[in-house]
Amino acid sequence: MESKTTVDVIIGGKVYTLSGYEEEAYLQKVAAYINGRVQELKNQSGFAKQGSDMQNVLIQLNIADDYFKAKEENERLSRKLQEQNKELYSLKHELVSLKMRIDQRDNHNQ
Amino acid sequence: MESKTTVDVIIGGKVYTLSGYEEEAYLQKVAAYINGRVQELKNQSGFAKQGSDMQNVLIQLNIADDYFKAKEENERLSRKLQEQNKELYSLKHELVSLKMRIDQRDNHNQ
Repeated sequence: MESKTTVDVIIGGKVYTLSGYEEEAYLQKVAAYINGRVQELKNQSGFAKQGSDMQNVLIQLNIADDYFKAKEENERLSRKLQEQNKELYSLKHELVSLKMRIDQRDNHNQ
Repeated sequence: MESKTTVDVIIGGKVYTLSGYEEEAYLQKVAAYINGRVQELKNQSGFAKQGSDMQNVLIQLNIADDYFKAKEENERLSRKLQEQNKELYSLKHELVSLKMRIDQRDNHNQ
């Protein structure tokens, strides 16, 4: 089992001490991503005027939107893998048939 | 261009009116996912004892973690697609060679 670590991350300019099983490098990467997303929202007109609850919900929705888009891309890639798998299967089948045809001819010509 | 829509979603028991170009069904799906993630955190011992800033950061980190895991899965699927593509290419090459071999024999035997 991995040992529990304690990591300080800075999110939205504040330091948070996280305790868990994730590696520090990973948590810093995730924190940097969240800060980037928050900064993008802050650059949008109107965000600063929202109440803090709405700001939090908008941050959550934006991160969740990235997650759903990545999930959609996963489904697209999985479908493509399945199609390719079918193509691979049928090519292998065709190859075996051709090799058998060649073998039969070789035997016939001997 | 799509028309701007206004959608009410319930997140964390509060109603938020969102305005944007996303479809209502999609926003409700994302809101339901966020509520599920928040509920999971609330079920964990210790979450309720955290301050609201830390609670918000933990929600953001959990959603972002799902995003990074989906992104990692995307990279794994993309690598697999590339490997399969190479295999497809070499099988097609082999098939063409075999067919040429058969054609040459046919011509030779005529």
